[in-house]
Amino acid sequence: MKIDTTLGVTTPESFLASGVSAGLKTSGDKDLALVVNQGPADHVAAVFTTNRFQAAPVVWSKQAMEQGGVRAIVLNSGGANACTGPQGLADAQMMAETLATQLGCEPTEVLVASTGLIGVLLDMDKVSAGIATAADKLSDFGGDDAAHAIMTTDTVTKQAGYVSPAGWSIGGMAKGAGMLAPALATMLVVITTDADVPQDQLPTHLKKATSISFDSADSDGCMSTNDTVVLLANGASGIKPDPKEFQEALDGVCVSLAKQLIADAEGAEHAITILVEEAASDNDALEVARSIARSNLFKCAIAGNDPNWGRVLASMGTASATFNPDEVDVYINEVGVFVDGAPGAPRASVDLSGFDVSLRVNLHAGGHSQVVWTNDLTHGYVSENADYSS
Amino acid sequence: MKIDTTLGVTTPESFLASGVSAGLKTSGDKDLALVVNQGPADHVAAVFTTNRFQAAPVVWSKQAMEQGGVRAIVLNSGGANACTGPQGLADAQMMAETLATQLGCEPTEVLVASTGLIGVLLDMDKVSAGIATAADKLSDFGGDDAAHAIMTTDTVTKQAGYVSPAGWSIGGMAKGAGMLAPALATMLVVITTDADVPQDQLPTHLKKATSISFDSADSDGCMSTNDTVVLLANGASGIKPDPKEFQEALDGVCVSLAKQLIADAEGAEHAITILVEEAASDNDALEVARSIARSNLFKCAIAGNDPNWGRVLASMGTASATFNPDEVDVYINEVGVFVDGAPGAPRASVDLSGFDVSLRVNLHAGGHSQVVWTNDLTHGYVSENADYSS
Repeated sequence: MKIDTTLGVTTPESFLASGVSAGLKTSGDKDLALVVNQGPADHVAAVFTTNRFQAAPVVWSKQAMEQGGVRAIVLNSGGANACTGPQGLADAQMMAETLATQLGCEPTEVLVASTGLIGVLLDMDKVSAGIATAADKLSDFGGDDAAHAIMTTDTVTKQAGYVSPAGWSIGGMAKGAGMLAPALATMLVVITTDADVPQDQLPTHLKKATSISFDSADSDGCMSTNDTVVLLANGASGIKPDPKEFQEALDGVCVSLAKQLIADAEGAEHAITILVEEAASDNDALEVARSIARSNLFKCAIAGNDPNWGRVLASMGTASATFNPDEVDVYINEVGVFVDGAPGAPRASVDLSGFDVSLRVNLHAGGHSQVVWTNDLTHGYVSENADYSS
Repeated sequence: MKIDTTLGVTTPESFLASGVSAGLKTSGDKDLALVVNQGPADHVAAVFTTNRFQAAPVVWSKQAMEQGGVRAIVLNSGGANACTGPQGLADAQMMAETLATQLGCEPTEVLVASTGLIGVLLDMDKVSAGIATAADKLSDFGGDDAAHAIMTTDTVTKQAGYVSPAGWSIGGMAKGAGMLAPALATMLVVITTDADVPQDQLPTHLKKATSISFDSADSDGCMSTNDTVVLLANGASGIKPDPKEFQEALDGVCVSLAKQLIADAEGAEHAITILVEEAASDNDALEVARSIARSNLFKCAIAGNDPNWGRVLASMGTASATFNPDEVDVYINEVGVFVDGAPGAPRASVDLSGFDVSLRVNLHAGGHSQVVWTNDLTHGYVSENADYSS
């Protein structure tokens, strides 16, 4: 199955998008995006952050979805509209109302997603004007502009899509960079499809896809207040997809976007794939993988091209997963540095000069495995997060 | 109660110590320390890391303590002797045997503690020669040398003590710097006292003291394989202390050492005291405090003198503790930046230019509170852990 990172949210038929500068970013870069579904169907599925401080746009979007189908989503960077109290919630609703007026639909048919600094109210004059401008610029080639407009500290856009030989397609865009650790959902992601998928099957498809993609991406262990993944399906191709092919395509798009997020995470100089295998359960494998992914010491070592497996073991040793410390194997870039509970190949035999690093841990405790994608902890991460508010 | 950081392990009567260079550190700095109890009593209590990868010296010391009293402890920096298999365990035992021969006691009366790089065998020729040299240099003024010899990336020694008007005293030393997050115990700490405290009361005293000191210190969320806190009591003063005064003195020494560890943690440019109050339980307060202490984004913000309370809330939002997100207050350096679930005083009114930072979070959910001490995440931390193996 060929996932193509040059495709995006306007690849599927009957979806329009745009991205404009509303003046929310002091840089003047694009900061407001629209994705509009022209139908015929208005099916939708979404997963949101499980953070208990839910941003106003998340609160609005959850309520709106309870009313039924979704025609559009308005997204902004340059301000997260999180922890902003009742005024923030009123602002999120006004964003939906403004776009609904432009499109001639109900406000509850419009979702809202925001990203940027927490705790600051949006400049609603700029936002409203920006929505009008963006509505004027809606186009079926607008996917790139939309993908640009949702970037914060991202250095590149993240897009992916798939075109089925059967005649339907799927496309998505994402932004990430920091505060990148999921539970159910993560970051801002919009995925569109013109496949004819019944509304009642859409949430199951999306949940399956996010569980093996965004849920496995853990850059810095910090969960955002704004994480939103939305899937819009309009059936415009007139084709009912093979459910297995559709799931595989959705999985592929989500995995591609998740890996793009990790590769462009703040300061990342290495993308690290952590595979924990032969665990007693999926949860055990995930716990061990996450304990490693969240070790600042391990992540600094990789930044310094140091295959410091002692830091891997020290972080594993805090996990409650079933394993015998004397029977664990650790492979870095497939070199067995710790085998059968004892030091293995010398550190010097591990080459970490490349961007991609693989860490494989065998627990010898069962038949389950899990992958977590993370990145190293670098001076760039500290610079981006110590020197700028975000 | 006056805790004096110029006192140390040889402040109490009838304790000797020394610190020498055995050649384990390539720098030639001191790397081997002895603390010897000349009696009359040989009482001991200890807490060890709960990391499942227990270093060889931890395994040895736990076994040795089961045999009864302790006469001495040998400590080395320049190598953690962790994850080193059966040879590592044999080496730890040989360290005890070598010192026991010098002192004329049983090997099981000697504890061992090591710190440094994980996964490398110690050069036992150097260690054995170093133990002989150190035994020759034992002195009742050797506390400073011993405190120097256990340093790794520490930039200063950590010592603290108390002299009771009643005539007994207590003294301690610690090393920390990185891999600094406890569960029961943390880092290498040796505390001595000449108070006459019964063996059966010593573990309770130590556990109480570590629970409010080292357990509250969380620099980088990384738990070591070698953490050891040892308390030796010889009764040489001939005085049975008031139990309350003794507990307060032990608490004070441990709190002083814990705060010294955080203030000198790798790269620290701010020491951060996190107080979570009005929680429904102690566990709730601790969970929230730790979730904040382990937020890389928050810790980077403090490094940049940015009172970014959005990152405090985002990290709190991942906790399962009882609280209503709409009723939480956050104070940074006692400025209410988020009050009653809404933005409070402007960020610019918070001055973070000083070394010490206080973060106070009120959950309005009950009557319990907990403190966690941490530090900021700086370029210095990345440099020390990306550029050097440790």
